[in-house]
Amino acid sequence: MNIGIFGTGGVARAIAAKLVSLGHNVTLGTRNVEETKSRSKGDAMGNVSFQEWIGKNASVKVATYADAAAFGELLVNATSGMGSLSALTSAGEKNLSGKVMIDISNPLDFSKGFPPSLSVSNTDSIGEQIQRAFPSLKVVKALNTLSNPLMVNPSLVNNGDHSLPICGNDADAKKKVIALLNTFGWKAENILDMGDITNARGTEAYLLLWVRMFGILQTPMFQFKIVR
Amino acid sequence: MNIGIFGTGGVARAIAAKLVSLGHNVTLGTRNVEETKSRSKGDAMGNVSFQEWIGKNASVKVATYADAAAFGELLVNATSGMGSLSALTSAGEKNLSGKVMIDISNPLDFSKGFPPSLSVSNTDSIGEQIQRAFPSLKVVKALNTLSNPLMVNPSLVNNGDHSLPICGNDADAKKKVIALLNTFGWKAENILDMGDITNARGTEAYLLLWVRMFGILQTPMFQFKIVR
Repeated sequence: MNIGIFGTGGVARAIAAKLVSLGHNVTLGTRNVEETKSRSKGDAMGNVSFQEWIGKNASVKVATYADAAAFGELLVNATSGMGSLSALTSAGEKNLSGKVMIDISNPLDFSKGFPPSLSVSNTDSIGEQIQRAFPSLKVVKALNTLSNPLMVNPSLVNNGDHSLPICGNDADAKKKVIALLNTFGWKAENILDMGDITNARGTEAYLLLWVRMFGILQTPMFQFKIVR
Repeated sequence: MNIGIFGTGGVARAIAAKLVSLGHNVTLGTRNVEETKSRSKGDAMGNVSFQEWIGKNASVKVATYADAAAFGELLVNATSGMGSLSALTSAGEKNLSGKVMIDISNPLDFSKGFPPSLSVSNTDSIGEQIQRAFPSLKVVKALNTLSNPLMVNPSLVNNGDHSLPICGNDADAKKKVIALLNTFGWKAENILDMGDITNARGTEAYLLLWVRMFGILQTPMFQFKIVR
């Protein structure tokens, strides 16, 4: 399948590499293609430079948000939450219309340092903002509750037995996303369909707990498992 | 030990009954003692009337917030989050001063129905508000992330193996609370000391996910377990 991913950071790279390994064709969308390709420095989170990464993942194409969106039969939003609406607006509504988008973003606001607060929460969410701004897009909030390596390789903790809440308004879109997640290694019984996109308030707000857990555990390699 | 509990609802009752079963002396604090004692109707959450409950738990005393606070060597805040500051203010600072308080409250705002939003979140929390309002009180946020029956009987799900985040500014107060939680059946390895009271932002915001999980699972008898 042709898949367009918004973003070029750690989440976008993890998803892109996994998709390529599964035989999909991937284009990353960014604001300025030449500037992105010329980035020669790693980031504070331990990601290598984009130059180095794309050199090792040469089958991944880099394009404008609009071209990446036009390319994708399925779309993934892996931009930072605070930049998501701007990125999607750049892509243009006609390139988004009718498509399924996995929204992994979180509205983390690091402007006052660590731990971050959320730029939107409680009575709204980025997932809902995107859905409102692009009504014909089929937004499925997913994978925003855990770290990159676990998104694409859930077996790295607890033999893959931990919980992944997803939500969205379109049942068929959720089915398609669940089918893709299954190919990532997510077991059907660990994916919790929470209902409509307003549930993104819950999964995004969970980040306020996640970032504190990360601080205490000193590793992002943890997850929550709902037990009954 | 003499323990004063703020509140007379489901959480207060669950904690009170457990404490009595463990040999403690318990006084519940309420705004209007006679009015509380005369309540003859159950509530929408399935709790029996206070009259019926106190009839079966006759060793539990009912007093004003001030008298319950004065009685307690250890205090528990089991009021609704939106009413907590008012209740504590009624108790009077001198009755709170220097004591350890387990704060179980959540700022759930049901004014627009279910699911509730939070009356404070993201950059503040009820736990912090209480700590700021009563600096000499040793607030330990705990037990606010799960349903009443599980608070006092963690073995009801997953053989007791699930995670309980706690936080607070006073290390010794947290030790005392953990010791009490151990007597409730909480295993030491499942209690996560998250750090200072600002972590209440994370555990209170988790309720936005919890209430949605409750809606999906159709039972409050679930918990999260952090796996690595």
